[in-house]
Amino acid sequence: MNDEMRRVLEEVRVGSLSVEEALGRLKAAPFEDIGYAKVDLHRKVRQGAAEVIYGAGKTPDQMAGIVEVMQSNGQGTVLITRLAADAAAELATLIDDLTYHAQARIGIIGRMPEPDGLGTIVVATGGTSDIPIAEEAALTAEVAGNRVHRLYDVGVAGLHRTLAHLDVLMDATVIIAVAGMEGALPSVLGGLVACPVIAVPTSVGYGAALGGIAALLGMLNSCASGVSVVNIDNGFGAGFLASRINHMRAKE
Amino acid sequence: MNDEMRRVLEEVRVGSLSVEEALGRLKAAPFEDIGYAKVDLHRKVRQGAAEVIYGAGKTPDQMAGIVEVMQSNGQGTVLITRLAADAAAELATLIDDLTYHAQARIGIIGRMPEPDGLGTIVVATGGTSDIPIAEEAALTAEVAGNRVHRLYDVGVAGLHRTLAHLDVLMDATVIIAVAGMEGALPSVLGGLVACPVIAVPTSVGYGAALGGIAALLGMLNSCASGVSVVNIDNGFGAGFLASRINHMRAKE
Amino acid sequence: MNDEMRRVLEEVRVGSLSVEEALGRLKAAPFEDIGYAKVDLHRKVRQGAAEVIYGAGKTPDQMAGIVEVMQSNGQGTVLITRLAADAAAELATLIDDLTYHAQARIGIIGRMPEPDGLGTIVVATGGTSDIPIAEEAALTAEVAGNRVHRLYDVGVAGLHRTLAHLDVLMDATVIIAVAGMEGALPSVLGGLVACPVIAVPTSVGYGAALGGIAALLGMLNSCASGVSVVNIDNGFGAGFLASRINHMRAKE
Amino acid sequence: MNDEMRRVLEEVRVGSLSVEEALGRLKAAPFEDIGYAKVDLHRKVRQGAAEVIYGAGKTPDQMAGIVEVMQSNGQGTVLITRLAADAAAELATLIDDLTYHAQARIGIIGRMPEPDGLGTIVVATGGTSDIPIAEEAALTAEVAGNRVHRLYDVGVAGLHRTLAHLDVLMDATVIIAVAGMEGALPSVLGGLVACPVIAVPTSVGYGAALGGIAALLGMLNSCASGVSVVNIDNGFGAGFLASRINHMRAKE
Amino acid sequence: MNDEMRRVLEEVRVGSLSVEEALGRLKAAPFEDIGYAKVDLHRKVRQGAAEVIYGAGKTPDQMAGIVEVMQSNGQGTVLITRLAADAAAELATLIDDLTYHAQARIGIIGRMPEPDGLGTIVVATGGTSDIPIAEEAALTAEVAGNRVHRLYDVGVAGLHRTLAHLDVLMDATVIIAVAGMEGALPSVLGGLVACPVIAVPTSVGYGAALGGIAALLGMLNSCASGVSVVNIDNGFGAGFLASRINHMRAKE
Amino acid sequence: MNDEMRRVLEEVRVGSLSVEEALGRLKAAPFEDIGYAKVDLHRKVRQGAAEVIYGAGKTPDQMAGIVEVMQSNGQGTVLITRLAADAAAELATLIDDLTYHAQARIGIIGRMPEPDGLGTIVVATGGTSDIPIAEEAALTAEVAGNRVHRLYDVGVAGLHRTLAHLDVLMDATVIIAVAGMEGALPSVLGGLVACPVIAVPTSVGYGAALGGIAALLGMLNSCASGVSVVNIDNGFGAGFLASRINHMRAKE
Amino acid sequence: MNDEMRRVLEEVRVGSLSVEEALGRLKAAPFEDIGYAKVDLHRKVRQGAAEVIYGAGKTPDQMAGIVEVMQSNGQGTVLITRLAADAAAELATLIDDLTYHAQARIGIIGRMPEPDGLGTIVVATGGTSDIPIAEEAALTAEVAGNRVHRLYDVGVAGLHRTLAHLDVLMDATVIIAVAGMEGALPSVLGGLVACPVIAVPTSVGYGAALGGIAALLGMLNSCASGVSVVNIDNGFGAGFLASRINHMRAKE
Amino acid sequence: MNDEMRRVLEEVRVGSLSVEEALGRLKAAPFEDIGYAKVDLHRKVRQGAAEVIYGAGKTPDQMAGIVEVMQSNGQGTVLITRLAADAAAELATLIDDLTYHAQARIGIIGRMPEPDGLGTIVVATGGTSDIPIAEEAALTAEVAGNRVHRLYDVGVAGLHRTLAHLDVLMDATVIIAVAGMEGALPSVLGGLVACPVIAVPTSVGYGAALGGIAALLGMLNSCASGVSVVNIDNGFGAGFLASRINHMRAKE
Repeated sequence: MNDEMRRVLEEVRVGSLSVEEALGRLKAAPFEDIGYAKVDLHRKVRQGAAEVIYGAGKTPDQMAGIVEVMQSNGQGTVLITRLAADAAAELATLIDDLTYHAQARIGIIGRMPEPDGLGTIVVATGGTSDIPIAEEAALTAEVAGNRVHRLYDVGVAGLHRTLAHLDVLMDATVIIAVAGMEGALPSVLGGLVACPVIAVPTSVGYGAALGGIAALLGMLNSCASGVSVVNIDNGFGAGFLASRINHMRAKE
Repeated sequence: MNDEMRRVLEEVRVGSLSVEEALGRLKAAPFEDIGYAKVDLHRKVRQGAAEVIYGAGKTPDQMAGIVEVMQSNGQGTVLITRLAADAAAELATLIDDLTYHAQARIGIIGRMPEPDGLGTIVVATGGTSDIPIAEEAALTAEVAGNRVHRLYDVGVAGLHRTLAHLDVLMDATVIIAVAGMEGALPSVLGGLVACPVIAVPTSVGYGAALGGIAALLGMLNSCASGVSVVNIDNGFGAGFLASRINHMRAKE
Repeated sequence: MNDEMRRVLEEVRVGSLSVEEALGRLKAAPFEDIGYAKVDLHRKVRQGAAEVIYGAGKTPDQMAGIVEVMQSNGQGTVLITRLAADAAAELATLIDDLTYHAQARIGIIGRMPEPDGLGTIVVATGGTSDIPIAEEAALTAEVAGNRVHRLYDVGVAGLHRTLAHLDVLMDATVIIAVAGMEGALPSVLGGLVACPVIAVPTSVGYGAALGGIAALLGMLNSCASGVSVVNIDNGFGAGFLASRINHMRAKE
Repeated sequence: MNDEMRRVLEEVRVGSLSVEEALGRLKAAPFEDIGYAKVDLHRKVRQGAAEVIYGAGKTPDQMAGIVEVMQSNGQGTVLITRLAADAAAELATLIDDLTYHAQARIGIIGRMPEPDGLGTIVVATGGTSDIPIAEEAALTAEVAGNRVHRLYDVGVAGLHRTLAHLDVLMDATVIIAVAGMEGALPSVLGGLVACPVIAVPTSVGYGAALGGIAALLGMLNSCASGVSVVNIDNGFGAGFLASRINHMRAKE
Repeated sequence: MNDEMRRVLEEVRVGSLSVEEALGRLKAAPFEDIGYAKVDLHRKVRQGAAEVIYGAGKTPDQMAGIVEVMQSNGQGTVLITRLAADAAAELATLIDDLTYHAQARIGIIGRMPEPDGLGTIVVATGGTSDIPIAEEAALTAEVAGNRVHRLYDVGVAGLHRTLAHLDVLMDATVIIAVAGMEGALPSVLGGLVACPVIAVPTSVGYGAALGGIAALLGMLNSCASGVSVVNIDNGFGAGFLASRINHMRAKE
Repeated sequence: MNDEMRRVLEEVRVGSLSVEEALGRLKAAPFEDIGYAKVDLHRKVRQGAAEVIYGAGKTPDQMAGIVEVMQSNGQGTVLITRLAADAAAELATLIDDLTYHAQARIGIIGRMPEPDGLGTIVVATGGTSDIPIAEEAALTAEVAGNRVHRLYDVGVAGLHRTLAHLDVLMDATVIIAVAGMEGALPSVLGGLVACPVIAVPTSVGYGAALGGIAALLGMLNSCASGVSVVNIDNGFGAGFLASRINHMRAKE
Repeated sequence: MNDEMRRVLEEVRVGSLSVEEALGRLKAAPFEDIGYAKVDLHRKVRQGAAEVIYGAGKTPDQMAGIVEVMQSNGQGTVLITRLAADAAAELATLIDDLTYHAQARIGIIGRMPEPDGLGTIVVATGGTSDIPIAEEAALTAEVAGNRVHRLYDVGVAGLHRTLAHLDVLMDATVIIAVAGMEGALPSVLGGLVACPVIAVPTSVGYGAALGGIAALLGMLNSCASGVSVVNIDNGFGAGFLASRINHMRAKE
Repeated sequence: MNDEMRRVLEEVRVGSLSVEEALGRLKAAPFEDIGYAKVDLHRKVRQGAAEVIYGAGKTPDQMAGIVEVMQSNGQGTVLITRLAADAAAELATLIDDLTYHAQARIGIIGRMPEPDGLGTIVVATGGTSDIPIAEEAALTAEVAGNRVHRLYDVGVAGLHRTLAHLDVLMDATVIIAVAGMEGALPSVLGGLVACPVIAVPTSVGYGAALGGIAALLGMLNSCASGVSVVNIDNGFGAGFLASRINHMRAKE
């Protein structure tokens, strides 16, 4: 936004913009107001990611409206998270080119980009019940231009399954470790590898799992270095962050 | 107590005990009342363990009084847990034959028994800070007649340290896994071995460790089978239970 | 796994295995990957128990697939926990020899083994509402080769009902104490007997029962020795652990 | 207060009180304002109890000032709770006739009344560490004119100690059950007797005792009828309420 | 039970009972085992109350079976709490003389006793949403032989409504104060009256009400003396205890 | 109520009111008792607001009854909050002039007053999912006679959207900041403006949002001055309070 | 800040400011960076309050440094909150004109302004232990130019003490209600008056008071309208907000 | 470790290592056991970081011993975190070349490396009280070879201070956002920049800050993408992870 601010100031200076117009442009530019949402059109540029719609609590009509504004502003690929199956079916009648991933509850509009990151993002889960959240992470990362390797059901109570995939783990540039219950997977993986580990607690479990709080606390207290944590069941957040890390390049 | 009850009834039946006496004996027998405590004299027989005094909140005088009653009733070895260093020093002036273990805050009166269990109890810790609780468990088990193998600082973030001791772990009859922070050690060990694992969460850690709650929740949600949990920092409870399991024998 | 590792190393040494083959075998051996699950084929040997499938969140097709892999690898008896009634009905059309226990939500494939443990496991409950979890524990123990005595509705507010069964309790080799609400049963039983007591908090209750948290906390703070705790409603975990303890034998 | 209001109205009606005076009296009457406190002079009449000062956070000077106001208004006996030992020593130099009970941290000014209740209040504790709170309850009840029977260290893990005193328990008109850790004592006692049981959780314990929360939750979920609960460590509240119940008499 | 024990011992002494028979009688007497429940037949005598069935989680068939055992043992009036409307309808086809109170979810079998207590129990609520729990308390007290005065919707935010009923409140022998949200009603009432106040937190409210936890904590911290608390939504417990207090009489 | 009390006293003094009548009037005046509710008729005068009915848990019949009493006592406008769509439809058949706002779940009977406050109340939300609660606040404020400016979807992660509306924010007399998830909106707005900010946490979010607790805690810890907080999802409370502040005028 | 931004833009437009200078001024203007703090010099103008320093965790030297910058920028009166007694003594040697209020832990530099608000702010407390927090609120309000009436020890369990001051309460323009334990004071006051009530929970209490959480929850769930809440023990925040409300004036 | 394993297998294959030796080397290699700790000598290679000692709970002697082992194994730079001032003073007498940073409680042995990362890590704090944790993060990053820009006291309630540094923020390759209280800083920064943001909640605050839990929850629920969280007060973890991200490079 600093650039935007600098540009506006420059135009005021050379006289091509009045003060009133400048104030107006600072207000109007970065998004389009369609009543129920302020569609953020500069976000891709500003944040370097495909545009995302959080689908929960939006009607198919609202989502179609937002997609339309995005597309008319040149946004190629759109990701819709937390998209229920019935909403997806209705949305498919309103817009073209929607692919729906039921397990991950993700809809993708437009084509998948070629991977252009530093290497491979590994998405690992402790059990089979964690797969929906892992898929949300994996698809998010793929939409953002990353190669993804899925490694499911490698929980710490069957350590030989983890160790059997040591080569895959050690080749990763980023690991997303998805686990419910005691959430120990990120600690074990974090102790084996030298790349960043993004821990995703899931609400899998019962009783003292407390809807994912036990896994969350376990991950926050990880004795392994290089581990950070996102919200319970936040596969999207993990995939988005992993992509950012996998696209790091020198600044100067 | 059933035996006691049966014995009293039998004596009433043969006339060697009046009803009043019977009621009296049921009340008076199993403990001696010394005002500030009801010393439980049948507990060793009933429960198969050396007598234990929970030292926290008792004065050296009170502890010496309880020990005296125990010894005058034939109790050989007495274990005092949560015994502070200064209280131990004062207690040593009141009773003979006290050995004090500062790190574990344990005092032992009398001689250590020979190990007579089924095999070896392994006491493992995730880090060095967990050692005081582990020592409480290990000494409790030794006082109760068990061979103990200590395996400290083998936390899950350095998996190779754990795996290096696989032979010790697989030879154990019972494992006591002591860990703070994320408390993942019991899960990893529980997945490797086929013996009961007693998990002891510790209050080691900070922030979201919540004084041991994070480790406790992690252990309760362990995805490994054969794991059960005792209270935070309850090394004594784990050592006591491990001894019971290590002394199992056929009944009937 | 140490044995496996040693065996592989030995074969490499004698030249019957190349380094590449050795690494491959370390990866491939212990489980079969069927996409949605990594079926753990060495688990029975490694852990000494019948194979178990956690039914919650798996489709009948998936469960049938896992059973098939197990059976083709010689696994005789399979236990499916958290198996809903409708899933059980559908599963029964896919595989032979399924017995469904509705109250415990358990399915058993194959025949029950003869009891070969050290003695009898007593499964006690505080109230009638705790029976489903108790049955999960009891059936798990029976599938694992244990004689089980059920003692239901003997909560601490009616102490005479507990005391009436003192002989059964004192003959047990292991007691599983299942209770919701204040969860005091394990403390009372733990004070009466000299065998290990496994406490199972249940989610029975309302208000300040907090879905089983009150019972869980009560059990963790038990003033009786020899008590350890598993997760809320985890009947399977208690039955599995009780069986391990009831099958203890001398090592070395 | 209704009586007060009625009396004031009556005086207004007969002309012996102006409206302004009436308003004034409604404001001024029931307490005396000494700056740092509004001493409640009608409370004994209104509530039927000796006056009580909550000592925590008050200076000896402040307490002496309040006592003086009370005594000059005819209050005979005054109870000071949560009175630290050093504050008590200082207070003793300021007022006459102060008896200090160190364990209960209670100071009593004036003479103890004769018991005039319906029967005996039994104060029972689970362990020796609960005694200070129990003493706070017992002394409060004695100051309020009740006969009290102390029954300490009768926790549920040593059931024979409880049963040995069945006759005392069944003769009680009210039982105050004081316990920390798992707090099961009120449930067990509540199942044995037919009188009201007041449960007092204590902060005795560690780890998952959560400073008394575990005991509190256990008591609130008691499966025994006739049990109610006061705040953690609130011995005074239990003694006060027990006295009220022990002084019940027919109305109307 | 002491009496029972004493009687059995006496019979053993005079030879009319063998030891084996004595042990048997101690086991068999106090309840009848009908498989899914151990019906407690001595409870009325022992505890002085009409028998109660906790209806939640029991089938109409089970409840009818329990009622039948009770009635064949001479129990006149039976109270069923937490009885859902559809279960009540089905139960009405199985047993005679069932009156169903829909709001309180209570079923009563047999006739209501005449009030024989010390005075009147006042049941007050903070709002209209608390009425179902208040009715559970009121009906429980009526079944137990008490006169009950209902005072609904007198919450503390409309103090004049409370004060308008001061005479009723001051005439009560026991007050049951039922409130959700901030749960301040018992404090205000407790400060006005001199009788015991039983506080019942309800799960009425939203957000930070935390399902009744806020009200529960508020009541436990009441600055008024003479207040004790039961579990959230436990109208039955409050009514039962109030009846006990309202039936106090001198002992000895 | 003081005025009422003074007036009653005055009438007693001049003899136009007997003591009994005075007591009666103090009881009867301020509300009308219609069984299931005590309709508060003096509340508008006493509190300066249109009368409000909390619709949750009341039947359409009950609500219609309360409205009738209000209207027959001269209450012009009535606001019903938490009014479900189907209840609104049924209520519309019972009373005239009901306008239903579905998103806010609010029903309004009677006409909207002209704004007569000090200035404009701004209602801002962090996201689109917070709009229903914001509308509850906005409509409440409008019914109470305030001009309202809605500023939705201006969450802190898109700061330029907030800054674009700085002029609106700085012109507000009161700001209601509605946000779920991390609840940071009030802090950011509170740092920009010099008017009171009322923070409304919403239950929008998942996982560690804990049903609004995360937002609530964030708002309570706001580092901006001038911020206060109401209950989770309590749009009504915020609107009501904002109106009070927007109608402040000099006293004395 | 909008004004600042507008002014800068205008200067750029007329050529009196280059783009680089403009960016620089936007950065440099509103505060002075003295290393350990960024002193906010425009805050008084922007927010309309005397400058405040949060004293906790700052050394006397640091505080003196900040005061110096403020005073050299024309700030007249400075308020230091959470100022420990020893830090105050040291600070008094470094700066002139410091008045220290020990109970409130507040230091004031400069002279008190004349009250210029709409009316009187009443600060009420439930008990005497709440007075320190109340004084923090009262002094903050006085420094900000408000007349303050203190009404201490008027908790809800002694309702007559509250009612005796009805006239003071009804004359207030804003009420600050400070209470610990069950925190019911704001509900009771909120039901009596028609002005905004700011609730301040305090950490006064023990056990289930949970360090102020019980009071906080109670206040958030207040059934009275017009009540909002600040953080536990946040007397400053309440005083600051009350002053803002007491200084409301019409905005076009 | 895979490489290690592969190397060992290869040596076995060519006959330069016996099976027993191979097993032995797998055990012995990666760490040196000095009794109270297992010093992890391969960690730098394996994880790419300077060796770290967690100082809390270790004596100066123990720390000196560990440092010695490290240095004799060629480790150049050693970082000691949570090093108290007095322990640092004592340690300085035992080893050479120790630099102590009091505010961050960090000791550094050996020389600082030249920065060799992708760009600059910005460490920002909300307030001055967060600086100690921020310094722990900054020094950790510097020891690990990163250029660090400190940006302290830029909390969200003074937004202009944040915006004034937009250029620094937008030039960062990684941002570490350190904040207590409501923890909103990472959300605001995360919305402005396109690089990964590591959020560090601190225990700064009081009351409802809950020792950092409020900030932690706020950060986990951040509505900005690209944000992940570490444990409360875990400056080291954030600095370590930031360094890993700032050293990302392409992998096959």
